[in-house]
Amino acid sequence: MSDAKIDQVLDHLDAGLPQAIDRLMGFLRIPSISTDPAHDGDVRRAAEWLRDELASMGFAAEIRDTTGHPMVVAKTPPGEARPLLFYGHYDVQPVDPLDLWDRPPFEPALEDTPDGQVIRGRGASDDKGQLMTFVEACRAWKHAHGALPEGLTLLFEGEEESGSPSLVPFLEGNRDELAQSLALICDTGMSSDGRPAISTQLRGLLGEEIVLRGADRDLHSGSFGGLAANPIQILCNALAALKDDTGRVTLPGFYDGVEELSDDLRRDWEALDFDAGEFLSRVGLKHPVGEQGRMPLEMVWNQPTAEINGITGGYTGDGFKTVLPAEARAKVSFRLTGTQDPARIREAFRAHIRAHLPGDCSVEFHEHGGSPAAVMDTSDPAFEAAKTALSEEWDREAVFIGMGGSIPIAGDFKRILGMDSMLIGFGRDDDRIHSPNEKYDVESFAKGARSWARILATLR
Amino acid sequence: MSDAKIDQVLDHLDAGLPQAIDRLMGFLRIPSISTDPAHDGDVRRAAEWLRDELASMGFAAEIRDTTGHPMVVAKTPPGEARPLLFYGHYDVQPVDPLDLWDRPPFEPALEDTPDGQVIRGRGASDDKGQLMTFVEACRAWKHAHGALPEGLTLLFEGEEESGSPSLVPFLEGNRDELAQSLALICDTGMSSDGRPAISTQLRGLLGEEIVLRGADRDLHSGSFGGLAANPIQILCNALAALKDDTGRVTLPGFYDGVEELSDDLRRDWEALDFDAGEFLSRVGLKHPVGEQGRMPLEMVWNQPTAEINGITGGYTGDGFKTVLPAEARAKVSFRLTGTQDPARIREAFRAHIRAHLPGDCSVEFHEHGGSPAAVMDTSDPAFEAAKTALSEEWDREAVFIGMGGSIPIAGDFKRILGMDSMLIGFGRDDDRIHSPNEKYDVESFAKGARSWARILATLR
Repeated sequence: MSDAKIDQVLDHLDAGLPQAIDRLMGFLRIPSISTDPAHDGDVRRAAEWLRDELASMGFAAEIRDTTGHPMVVAKTPPGEARPLLFYGHYDVQPVDPLDLWDRPPFEPALEDTPDGQVIRGRGASDDKGQLMTFVEACRAWKHAHGALPEGLTLLFEGEEESGSPSLVPFLEGNRDELAQSLALICDTGMSSDGRPAISTQLRGLLGEEIVLRGADRDLHSGSFGGLAANPIQILCNALAALKDDTGRVTLPGFYDGVEELSDDLRRDWEALDFDAGEFLSRVGLKHPVGEQGRMPLEMVWNQPTAEINGITGGYTGDGFKTVLPAEARAKVSFRLTGTQDPARIREAFRAHIRAHLPGDCSVEFHEHGGSPAAVMDTSDPAFEAAKTALSEEWDREAVFIGMGGSIPIAGDFKRILGMDSMLIGFGRDDDRIHSPNEKYDVESFAKGARSWARILATLR
Repeated sequence: MSDAKIDQVLDHLDAGLPQAIDRLMGFLRIPSISTDPAHDGDVRRAAEWLRDELASMGFAAEIRDTTGHPMVVAKTPPGEARPLLFYGHYDVQPVDPLDLWDRPPFEPALEDTPDGQVIRGRGASDDKGQLMTFVEACRAWKHAHGALPEGLTLLFEGEEESGSPSLVPFLEGNRDELAQSLALICDTGMSSDGRPAISTQLRGLLGEEIVLRGADRDLHSGSFGGLAANPIQILCNALAALKDDTGRVTLPGFYDGVEELSDDLRRDWEALDFDAGEFLSRVGLKHPVGEQGRMPLEMVWNQPTAEINGITGGYTGDGFKTVLPAEARAKVSFRLTGTQDPARIREAFRAHIRAHLPGDCSVEFHEHGGSPAAVMDTSDPAFEAAKTALSEEWDREAVFIGMGGSIPIAGDFKRILGMDSMLIGFGRDDDRIHSPNEKYDVESFAKGARSWARILATLR
């Protein structure tokens, strides 16, 4: 694309920013809380709003019903360029506790803050504001080119904040239609130092619940203490033995598939100047734990973890009861990296727990999901091209970053549709997503749309 | 006392058994549940019933108010023989769950069972039936001798099942009046092999609650896992390290004061033929745990323990949350033997937990009681005399046994009144005290009263 054309697109975005913000405000006024059945009608209204908006721009847009909330699918005609799938979600988180909001969550407004102007309201950042950056880029593109970018498929989900129950069946049922050469996902953030970022690896997640049983009833610790097995003690012993003194997980084969950082990524991550002490100090902590001798970002993005997310057993109310309990429970999760195999790690974990059981105790396991890490193939030239486009737009060098969390959609796209995802988003650490007073920086919205215009230009 | 006299007492007990059972039934009909304020009037009524019964027999009996439920104190004139204090409690446990009772808990009845006749009803064994064995022995004594036994002080409490809040102040406030040369307590059981028993040692009890705190809020295990301290993991590590592989507690100095069994006691306990496997099989277990190489009864009665009575942290509801929690809590108790010092062990335990804390975590401890073991001085000739009397009555050799649990009153008598306690009771393992369908064997009631008559004869 010529420089003149992209400049036209960007100029149009700049000139139309007030109108773009107005449109977003309209979208934000629809309380599309997907987890609350009382808002089912609102969720549908948000889908219709999006469908109408896209149709008015020239997309072939339609609502596709599922057994839950509907999908919105919009397409442009195929062309020469590689076909792309863009994903976002139009549902939002609940607003509780409502009394902590400084304004009604679904009456969005522009606010001036010491850090610049923000759009305040539920969904501003997660994900209505983010997805609209792409939509506005398309609108400006059409204005400059006379037509929408070719070969686009847009997929908008209405259940992301409630576990996406309909997504996998929908992908499986529409494989041919949805499988493109690359997915673009706008639901992530910038680097914490403010640089534009592409998230190229996400940790996987494996959840296990353990129910460890001893006696067939709660016992009196006076009558039985010293003779009878205590399930809490056994559970503590087994969970303590899950890591050695250096913080490494002791399960046999656990680190199979964990890959050392490439030199390129190490350089990118080191350049982020991530200050673990400062990061931890925000939540009242000081010292990075975990395996020693690794850089902190490596621990969060490229190393696996084993964490106890919950534990309960015996008497936990006020006061004291000298009970020797019949059972104890724990929820344990593993964040996975590289090609670690969730199924093998689940088996190793169960074997580890069983090895700690006396002969007269039993254990029951409940599976709570297991997905491998998603590591994108950044040799796809789109990644370097997008990085360059982002660097130009933000006038700061864009970086490839990792994510400590897990975004199942990226794994689903890979597994079901066979395509990698390029995760680019403009959220900030202080956007308060999922919390009261959510906001999205006007800069993120404006430069986000400009960023997508530049990225589309490099890929079209 | 002449054989003729004791025979008269015993004959009178036998002849009067139906009337004695009737009296107990009247006592059992009063629902004196001390923990439930709705029954405050009933608790007082039970105290009055007892006071009236004792007064009608010739005791100088009175109700003594406290800030809680009243005490009943009854006395006979001093004489030549050593002064004795008898203790029992007239309050009972709640009856929930009511629907598991086969008959209304406060409408007691005689029932024929394959193991003999029983008195069924709340309080039949714990402790109304037991305390009445002593009262009935006194009644028969008076019939034979023309006067009650000399030098008796009877103390009946109405708050034993609700933590005895008034007991210590009452003992402290009436030291001179209540301190006698020996206490008789009827609130324990026979040996599990059916032999009469004197409990000569009770384990002490020390309770500690730990609140371990990390971050100042719950964290997302994706964003922070690998960097932030997990209080559950730290707690598990510390609690697992509380014992070594052989089951011994690792706290420095923990075993100071634990005494090896005397040859005499070892002989008595070995003669009990306690089958740990059978005992554990009743609650669905098989294998004795704890320190290896010791006889099972020694583990329960003469060795200290460390037990985790409760633990909680993080997400414990249905499903799964990948939270890295801000805090974790545990309740831990120690059963103490010999002269183990609760205060020193508390300090050692706290130091142990603190030693496992990273620098950015904190811990808070809540004290839940601490009392040393009560080990009776069985060189007091009353013990051998009572053993002989019990052996004669039951035609089986009586034994000195230990108790795994703790009966604070014995320690209170020792500490505040400076006297040992002789714990003799006739409860059975299957009496279902604190549970629905509580019962007391008619044999226990009848031979219990006869046992006290014989014991009084040896001590008068």
